[in-house]
Amino acid sequence: MKDKKLFNLLATKYQISFNNLDLLFSALTHSSYANEHRELKIKDYERLEFLGDAVLELNVSEYIFKTFPSLPEGQLTKLRADIVCTASFARFCREVGLQEFIRLGNGEEKAGSRNRDTLLEDVFEAFVGALYLDQGNDKVVAFLKQVIYYHIDAGEFSDDNDFKTELQEELQQQGDVQIDYQVIQTDGTDDQTIFTVQLVVDGHPLTTGSGTSKKHAEQQAAKKQLQHLHHK
Amino acid sequence: MKDKKLFNLLATKYQISFNNLDLLFSALTHSSYANEHRELKIKDYERLEFLGDAVLELNVSEYIFKTFPSLPEGQLTKLRADIVCTASFARFCREVGLQEFIRLGNGEEKAGSRNRDTLLEDVFEAFVGALYLDQGNDKVVAFLKQVIYYHIDAGEFSDDNDFKTELQEELQQQGDVQIDYQVIQTDGTDDQTIFTVQLVVDGHPLTTGSGTSKKHAEQQAAKKQLQHLHHK
Repeated sequence: MKDKKLFNLLATKYQISFNNLDLLFSALTHSSYANEHRELKIKDYERLEFLGDAVLELNVSEYIFKTFPSLPEGQLTKLRADIVCTASFARFCREVGLQEFIRLGNGEEKAGSRNRDTLLEDVFEAFVGALYLDQGNDKVVAFLKQVIYYHIDAGEFSDDNDFKTELQEELQQQGDVQIDYQVIQTDGTDDQTIFTVQLVVDGHPLTTGSGTSKKHAEQQAAKKQLQHLHHK
Repeated sequence: MKDKKLFNLLATKYQISFNNLDLLFSALTHSSYANEHRELKIKDYERLEFLGDAVLELNVSEYIFKTFPSLPEGQLTKLRADIVCTASFARFCREVGLQEFIRLGNGEEKAGSRNRDTLLEDVFEAFVGALYLDQGNDKVVAFLKQVIYYHIDAGEFSDDNDFKTELQEELQQQGDVQIDYQVIQTDGTDDQTIFTVQLVVDGHPLTTGSGTSKKHAEQQAAKKQLQHLHHK
């Protein structure tokens, strides 16, 4: 019953259908469960986690390397650290919906481990490791597009103004330019203000962006201009 | 002249011919050189190093994951840490012969940076990053076979008895077995002793191995038996 629910989830949400189900089940099996059920001869997720960790590191690195072609190495490293971390991976694990399918031993279950971020991070990495072995990296990339890259594109990890920095770096390759962000509108309710800013380069008004903070609105405007530049 | 020597080296030793030479030259360019020669508009290696680091991490992880199919995660992690580290990468950089082609600023050259391990590590990573972008991961794997995997197969990073552990894990999947390593010969000069050991499993003599220490000889014997098991 529960297996079927998992297969349906992966198939409908992510178009994933495992060939080797042992890999899928191992990715979801904590050592405490494997130890309590030795008769099943099921492997725990630890080796898959080792591999999946590196699969995620490379794919996230490649994605931001290509998405931000002028961002300096220091900021790429900082951005990657915000994405490749326990809190983010635990969140992705929950968003995918793997949490309820994890096989835990009784003691761990009672201790509430099913909701522990470090365990959810491990399972997310192991799942990606299993997917990589079973279907290859192209399928992993398709999965990460839905699960991680979407959040990167939305600027959720870009505390450090990555889109603004990237735009500045790209524009300055042609020489010095004057870049301003001007608030042109404030909207919203008592609870929340929505700022709209306009990007102005050398006096020319270009794209606009909106957000619940000026910084976020500026990021949006920079991101739109980058998309415009890259699709010219 | 120097460029031609580099192209020849890569072509003859590694069957590598870059399509995008900017990538190759960037991988060999330290920021001090890029800063001293702004008119060349050449990028330094820092972004490529960021990417190459992750390319190496995944490929080494995958190789040892598959070479040691029963090694526990903890030992895989330790083995990877021995391979993916400054000293090893600097050594590989020297063995490939990239050292003399690095473009350094005058100050760095005078300070002896060309022989600094951390710089050689960076260049090795950047070169792999450039190769990955220019030719794809299959070509990277072919390169790493010659440059890194060869050393792994020779047991050079296996301080922790990885082949012996792997063999033990594989043999014990069928139930308890008695594994012994017996010294059957000692040879050598005053300076150096060569030990030959025999692997004995449940009283049956199997493979032998030789080395300058008992441990190394045991590793060799275990490795031979693993090859025998995997090729059955």
